[in-house]
Amino acid sequence: MGEPGAADRSAIEAILAAAGADGRRALTADEARVLCLAYGIPVPAESVVTSVDAAVAYAEQIGYPVVAKIVSPDILHKTEAGGVRVGLASADELRAAHGQIMAAAAAHDPTARLHGLLVQRMLPAGLEVIVGTTTDPTFGTLVAFGLGGVLVEVLRDVTFRLAPVDLPTARAMLSSIAAARVLEGVRGQPAVDTAALAALLVAVSRLAADFPAIGEVDLNPVIATADGVCAADVRILLRGEPATAWVRHQPEAIRLSMRRLFRPRSVAVIGASAEDGKIGNSVMRNLIAGGFAGTIYPINPTATEICGRPAYPTIAAVPGPVDVAVFAIPARLVPTVLEEVGRKGVAAAVLIPSGFAETGNTELQAEVQRVGREFGVRFLGPNIYGLYYLPSHLCATFCTPYDVAGPVALSSQSGGIGMAILGFARSTGMGVSAIVGLGNKADIDEDDLLTFFEEDEATSCIAMHMEDLKDGRAFLEAAQRVSRVKPVVVLKAGRTGAGARAAGSHTGALAGDDRVYDDLLRAAGVVRAPGLREMLETARCLPMMPTPTGENVVIITGAGGSGVLLSDACVDAGLSLMVMPADLDAAFRAFIPPFGAAGNPVDITGGEPPSTYRKTIALGLDDPRIHALVLGYWHTIITPPMVFAELLVDVVEEARRRGIHKPVVASLAGDVEVEQAAAHCFAHGIPAYPYTTETPVAILGAKYRWARGAGLLQGL
Amino acid sequence: MGEPGAADRSAIEAILAAAGADGRRALTADEARVLCLAYGIPVPAESVVTSVDAAVAYAEQIGYPVVAKIVSPDILHKTEAGGVRVGLASADELRAAHGQIMAAAAAHDPTARLHGLLVQRMLPAGLEVIVGTTTDPTFGTLVAFGLGGVLVEVLRDVTFRLAPVDLPTARAMLSSIAAARVLEGVRGQPAVDTAALAALLVAVSRLAADFPAIGEVDLNPVIATADGVCAADVRILLRGEPATAWVRHQPEAIRLSMRRLFRPRSVAVIGASAEDGKIGNSVMRNLIAGGFAGTIYPINPTATEICGRPAYPTIAAVPGPVDVAVFAIPARLVPTVLEEVGRKGVAAAVLIPSGFAETGNTELQAEVQRVGREFGVRFLGPNIYGLYYLPSHLCATFCTPYDVAGPVALSSQSGGIGMAILGFARSTGMGVSAIVGLGNKADIDEDDLLTFFEEDEATSCIAMHMEDLKDGRAFLEAAQRVSRVKPVVVLKAGRTGAGARAAGSHTGALAGDDRVYDDLLRAAGVVRAPGLREMLETARCLPMMPTPTGENVVIITGAGGSGVLLSDACVDAGLSLMVMPADLDAAFRAFIPPFGAAGNPVDITGGEPPSTYRKTIALGLDDPRIHALVLGYWHTIITPPMVFAELLVDVVEEARRRGIHKPVVASLAGDVEVEQAAAHCFAHGIPAYPYTTETPVAILGAKYRWARGAGLLQGL
Repeated sequence: MGEPGAADRSAIEAILAAAGADGRRALTADEARVLCLAYGIPVPAESVVTSVDAAVAYAEQIGYPVVAKIVSPDILHKTEAGGVRVGLASADELRAAHGQIMAAAAAHDPTARLHGLLVQRMLPAGLEVIVGTTTDPTFGTLVAFGLGGVLVEVLRDVTFRLAPVDLPTARAMLSSIAAARVLEGVRGQPAVDTAALAALLVAVSRLAADFPAIGEVDLNPVIATADGVCAADVRILLRGEPATAWVRHQPEAIRLSMRRLFRPRSVAVIGASAEDGKIGNSVMRNLIAGGFAGTIYPINPTATEICGRPAYPTIAAVPGPVDVAVFAIPARLVPTVLEEVGRKGVAAAVLIPSGFAETGNTELQAEVQRVGREFGVRFLGPNIYGLYYLPSHLCATFCTPYDVAGPVALSSQSGGIGMAILGFARSTGMGVSAIVGLGNKADIDEDDLLTFFEEDEATSCIAMHMEDLKDGRAFLEAAQRVSRVKPVVVLKAGRTGAGARAAGSHTGALAGDDRVYDDLLRAAGVVRAPGLREMLETARCLPMMPTPTGENVVIITGAGGSGVLLSDACVDAGLSLMVMPADLDAAFRAFIPPFGAAGNPVDITGGEPPSTYRKTIALGLDDPRIHALVLGYWHTIITPPMVFAELLVDVVEEARRRGIHKPVVASLAGDVEVEQAAAHCFAHGIPAYPYTTETPVAILGAKYRWARGAGLLQGL
Repeated sequence: MGEPGAADRSAIEAILAAAGADGRRALTADEARVLCLAYGIPVPAESVVTSVDAAVAYAEQIGYPVVAKIVSPDILHKTEAGGVRVGLASADELRAAHGQIMAAAAAHDPTARLHGLLVQRMLPAGLEVIVGTTTDPTFGTLVAFGLGGVLVEVLRDVTFRLAPVDLPTARAMLSSIAAARVLEGVRGQPAVDTAALAALLVAVSRLAADFPAIGEVDLNPVIATADGVCAADVRILLRGEPATAWVRHQPEAIRLSMRRLFRPRSVAVIGASAEDGKIGNSVMRNLIAGGFAGTIYPINPTATEICGRPAYPTIAAVPGPVDVAVFAIPARLVPTVLEEVGRKGVAAAVLIPSGFAETGNTELQAEVQRVGREFGVRFLGPNIYGLYYLPSHLCATFCTPYDVAGPVALSSQSGGIGMAILGFARSTGMGVSAIVGLGNKADIDEDDLLTFFEEDEATSCIAMHMEDLKDGRAFLEAAQRVSRVKPVVVLKAGRTGAGARAAGSHTGALAGDDRVYDDLLRAAGVVRAPGLREMLETARCLPMMPTPTGENVVIITGAGGSGVLLSDACVDAGLSLMVMPADLDAAFRAFIPPFGAAGNPVDITGGEPPSTYRKTIALGLDDPRIHALVLGYWHTIITPPMVFAELLVDVVEEARRRGIHKPVVASLAGDVEVEQAAAHCFAHGIPAYPYTTETPVAILGAKYRWARGAGLLQGL
């Protein structure tokens, strides 16, 4: 299946243009066939004939059995119209079918134009699969693959990727469906030709991607056999509406703006106020209390000084250059002042005010977008709590300040989620580089943030709550690039039907079908969090854990009961429990009682002293065949919680000094002293959780998902 | 499909006995047919013939097309042997097939006895389904249902129930598979006759349940059409090993023993010790410190007094009656002392010692079982931490004491999980009636505990961690009965393949296939918890929440972002977001800003004062069409966390005074003050969680699952 030549391309353009000019949504079978042949998409031998004798002559030429179908631009669903007959095994059967089809078609729609009969070689029996493309408002052209029949229709076992796909991606699609094993042959069927199937996906995806006028391609069914694939039926629909043209900024331009936003030399507060309880007052106080080292310019039409800083009536009146303007004025004033801000040469604005699209005022929001573009001001929001960037001591928000610096950058589309981030961070002492409100995302978007955090040395993990994406492709491109070096954790709200409806009513955002989001985020290497708490815990822990160098996970547990639950959790998290080599098994057995269970989990049993934990954990760290440890601690008087926590930290730190860095997570089963023990472990970079076997393993699973997506692990 | 008569039954007995006497595992097709006809299981018209002329004569009688199959006791897999031909449409085709089949069978196995040819009416095209029974070591005879082909083989879309099933259960099975919608007809196919299919499940399940010699019945495929069902192929296998005969106690006998165990007048501590650090010392101190009001008898061969109580050298020497004996002596001494305990008339023993099956010493455990049965002593363990029963102030354990009394009874098979229960309970202040260690479960089992907790007025919710069940039917019977009045929450460890392996190495327990456990637990009305933390949170919250009276859930949120996530969580938890009636929508709108979103979620928006929360929550409680509320709080300076918590408690308590009891759960998004707010809500019986939208909704979902299973809700 090669590239179409220039002649093919112009033929296709002509077909699409003609169909568009006719006001048609669908191409005819003949037209669709031209497109398929140009892209090397296998279709059955066929010919349109206009007489019953010609039909028989053609059938004799290609061989029986054949299929006969009505050809009419007015009949889209041929089967329902009685216009299709299959398995015609002789000239007599074909002649009879011809008469029946013509009669049925005329009866179905007496006004339909009947152009003749399509005689087609009947395909051999094989596996029915579906290959197609569709156009998504967020992501553009997508290619889809699934098995035919109830698997797609009832169980929705189908997978999507951005079109076009290359061959490795097409192969990955084949193994992404739940019923993938069917392709290998089950119930005595031979395996299908997956090379041909993957090539077909590539070709179909290129066809749809090359011609923006194509809205949908539907090859249903494609018959896949051991010898190849062939599309039994092809439908090609034109795009209903033109694609949205998203504003794209060049990466270098994004970086320049973002650097000025996050590392400003000076910040103006538009609507700064001396009055307690006003947003313009909270912002001023937070900026000052946060320790921002640059200049702060309060802008207020009447004040001469606010919070001890000289105030200016307008941004134009500010003597020096300004990098960032934080808006704390009513929504209706924003466009005018944003223009002034632009004229002043301000790089970025933080638009706290609400009263835009989220309240139905889309015109005002569009006006702000227009002004921002015209005057070259990038902006956050509107309708946000602001932003925190701790390396700059920048606390440009009306919310409570936060000063525990660390490696995690977070963003949220909702203010409520922003407050939950803040509370969780403060409660757990999570070290943060940035917390950014995105709100209505009328300009600065997740891909802008990713582009900044990618180069930001203070950030080693990015976590984003999102309800929608405007330009899905821009996000995926950035996420794929950034994910290779830093984990990107995403909480996509509006996952389910009900959630998506709520998203619609909240921001007027288009919430995509969740299967599409799930496939595309996964393919981009994003670690998707199933819920808010998981996003927060994952963000907190990922930067703590070294990246594993292989898939072998070993559980060491003092509680057999925890071992079983931890094993369950490992399977749920997609982790591979190492099959223990005999020598390693013997080495563990040397440290544990004879009735303890070696193998994996290594069950050291509950009555053991600290030295047994110490020796087995040290062995797990030292043996290079083991890549990660999951520990199950059981509170006993022989090894109390803090004794365990201290020995664990000690063993891990000793290994670190010898250059051994492996992820270690712990589940602590015990009385309330385990909470203090967990805190001690966390303080030394070891994720440890009381009263749960699931969370520590889920965290390790997230690290593995990221490492695999980033290509840092062999195998799987 | 009726009940077989006595003649049928004895014919079946004779067939099974003869096959067993032959040492055969499988019945012949003829034999299987007799069983099917007796139970009204539809099979195709057929006859075994011994000549080609007789074959044609029979085919002419029943009509073409027919199927021809070799009949031989020596050929089990007829298709593989070339012994099956289908779709024979004429006498000529049948004659040709006869010759080919006989030749192929002879070639396949020259020594095979060929009894003739089975001529069978060929079934119409229809939906292929699988109906069968199997024998499970834990649950006995199970009936299974699934769709044919890849759905069962690749996606394992199959469902199980205890055999026999009644008609409502059979109907429930039909809708339990993921692809259930296929039965209703998809892709232009008609719906199949589900009444006939359900009746078939009933009949097959009765056949297998009526005759314990039957190990497996396999109707594969059954052809289901709009007009009925017919089993195209029937295999019946004999049971390989006889079923384990579990010891069953009568419910009244269980109650008598359990009452004495949980509410003893006197407790003896076998191996009581004055020496700090000994288990026999910890048990003594806990019993005394726990405030047990009955008599405590320390048993020690040499001491005259322990912890201020007179000691006795043997249990026989104790002057008064003894209800419970707690063992704190080495494992090897247990059988002898258990016999003495039995002779004394002690009702129940708490066997703390380890060194039994869990260390490979199955003989010692069997000996303890034998002694217990012979001398009429029921016992917990061995290999346990003991038990807590707070209404009796009974703290018969060597672990730390616990004294926050409340409605939750918990049990665990593992000591580690027991310690996690204790720590979680203390950390959250969860009120507990009992915490029971089950360990090796050589005698007292979950069904014994359920029988006690069922009548225990102190207990209104039961949560059990289990790794295996010995007598699965006894558990399910008890769980089904108890679940109708009190929720039974189960954490089944060893869910996954890896987990099940770990269970095997830990206790030698047979871990069942998880699909079987999942189906059977659900059918019994058990609320299954996916993990340890979920079990604990569910147990903590279920008793707090009133039982909903209907399915209409309404979300009221101050944070639109939380609303979206809460909606996602509701769908995940199987909750129904109420479709808001117009008048109710208008009533909510009257309280919220014009740009707030009514509908469901009701988004009151973030800048609202306490009165808006108050009015909307009150409306949600008052309107009888709403059955449960999910609240999303957003921390603002206008409505700070404790202000919200206090108004919420106030509104809910005010409604309670007016007799309005609805489940209300809350998700709190905000800075760390929300932790105190959550605690205030919990203290007043309202589950509220900070930094998560998932947990409060999952808790409500568990309440609904229980209420539906208990038949307390209409609809769905």
